[in-house]
Amino acid sequence: MCQLLGMNCNKPASLEFSLEGFMRRGGQTDEHRDGWGIAYFEGDDCRVVRDDRPSCSSPLAERMRRDPVKSRNVIAHIRKATQGAVELSNCHPFARSLWGSNWAYAHNGDLKNPRLPLDGSYVPVGTTDSELAFCYLLQELSRRCGARRPAAPALFETVAELCAEIAAFGTFNFLLSDGEALFAHCSTQLHHVGRAHPFKSVRLVDHDLSVDFSRRNHPDDRMSVIATKPLTTGEEWVAFAPGELKHFRDGTEASVSRPIDELALEI
Amino acid sequence: MCQLLGMNCNKPASLEFSLEGFMRRGGQTDEHRDGWGIAYFEGDDCRVVRDDRPSCSSPLAERMRRDPVKSRNVIAHIRKATQGAVELSNCHPFARSLWGSNWAYAHNGDLKNPRLPLDGSYVPVGTTDSELAFCYLLQELSRRCGARRPAAPALFETVAELCAEIAAFGTFNFLLSDGEALFAHCSTQLHHVGRAHPFKSVRLVDHDLSVDFSRRNHPDDRMSVIATKPLTTGEEWVAFAPGELKHFRDGTEASVSRPIDELALEI
Repeated sequence: MCQLLGMNCNKPASLEFSLEGFMRRGGQTDEHRDGWGIAYFEGDDCRVVRDDRPSCSSPLAERMRRDPVKSRNVIAHIRKATQGAVELSNCHPFARSLWGSNWAYAHNGDLKNPRLPLDGSYVPVGTTDSELAFCYLLQELSRRCGARRPAAPALFETVAELCAEIAAFGTFNFLLSDGEALFAHCSTQLHHVGRAHPFKSVRLVDHDLSVDFSRRNHPDDRMSVIATKPLTTGEEWVAFAPGELKHFRDGTEASVSRPIDELALEI
Repeated sequence: MCQLLGMNCNKPASLEFSLEGFMRRGGQTDEHRDGWGIAYFEGDDCRVVRDDRPSCSSPLAERMRRDPVKSRNVIAHIRKATQGAVELSNCHPFARSLWGSNWAYAHNGDLKNPRLPLDGSYVPVGTTDSELAFCYLLQELSRRCGARRPAAPALFETVAELCAEIAAFGTFNFLLSDGEALFAHCSTQLHHVGRAHPFKSVRLVDHDLSVDFSRRNHPDDRMSVIATKPLTTGEEWVAFAPGELKHFRDGTEASVSRPIDELALEI
């Protein structure tokens, strides 16, 4: 399995501190040695940095640490390969464009022989079940919502429908963003924490490092951090319920999903 | 206008030396200060690094110089903005997927109100004429060639057709690669040089630096370097003819286009 880390903020912010702990799980404090990647949005575009070496020792990861980036939406991933070789084309996050925007996505889980028919509009480059599910997601968002990005509630409903369909084939924890909203879906394991005024002093779980967020942030700053497992102590991480889809915008949770059973009835 | 640099090799090679001179044109020895970018293929995938700062002073560019990459196909670009703001979404190379492969592309020139109707399969993220033309190119390759990459001659013919159509709207010098072949089209200015055994000793035009390629390369190594303006002295750069499309594979030129007038008659 892999691990996920995401951030959604109301103003461009650095993920530096949380990333520090997360990257150590890529071969040092945990077993996710088969590559890593990070996508961070800038304006209408998205930068994606990926590597098939372990994040704890990757020169690219070291450089990311030394020159941290500020962004309103970030998705990071460390990989423990279950399907697909250890190579660049199988490293998350994957990024593709839809409705004139870039969409980035990372997946944690395993989909068993997923029957997700592709019509050729999005074709996987690598060999993972994860990228296949991403291609299907974007294809179906485009097919079901039409030529333009729908309003937020309709988009949320469609993503929720697709989560239920795809999760029928296995474990489908994922993060998805178009630079505006960040969607987070939990099959088995996902946590989130909100950071806002009054900011707290917290400590990394994976490294002997503390930070007082009140010294780093402005009282108006607001952010949500989403991770497979809590990265810090000293703040309250909330576990997602299995089947739950959350939708973050401007640093806070914007909508809450209905339980997956209720959705399944409508499909 | 912008400047282009491309490389196609029979084995993964470093573009380090040529890139050293090219990046200096991004604000130091020349005026291309509005961003830069590089795409290099690795296996079936493609890494893209872009920045909206001048390449001569970009920290990202400096890091690329210190940690050079080896690849069989590389496309680099330095930008002097003519259309579209100086921002990440307008920096070349652009990359999109088609037929399950990534395609990277960079353009030098200016297309005036190009009438290139898009059907929604590829939608620009930024606001440049360059990205619009790339979206049209991929859309039409997909539409005219079908669901799979055609054989090399048919692909070359279709790219040539599209060059003639798009160049009718202005200057369309570009580089395009899917990691296998590198296409290079000249409207006004493009040069290429072949490097193979016996390798020569050459000197950069933009910097006081020489290299003896016979010491760096194996006798079997073979590469073609394509650039807007020659980067070195001591080797023979060949100017493309206006309207010429060339197709490089395994480090050498694989096909030569017919003149644009002859193509135009068939369309």
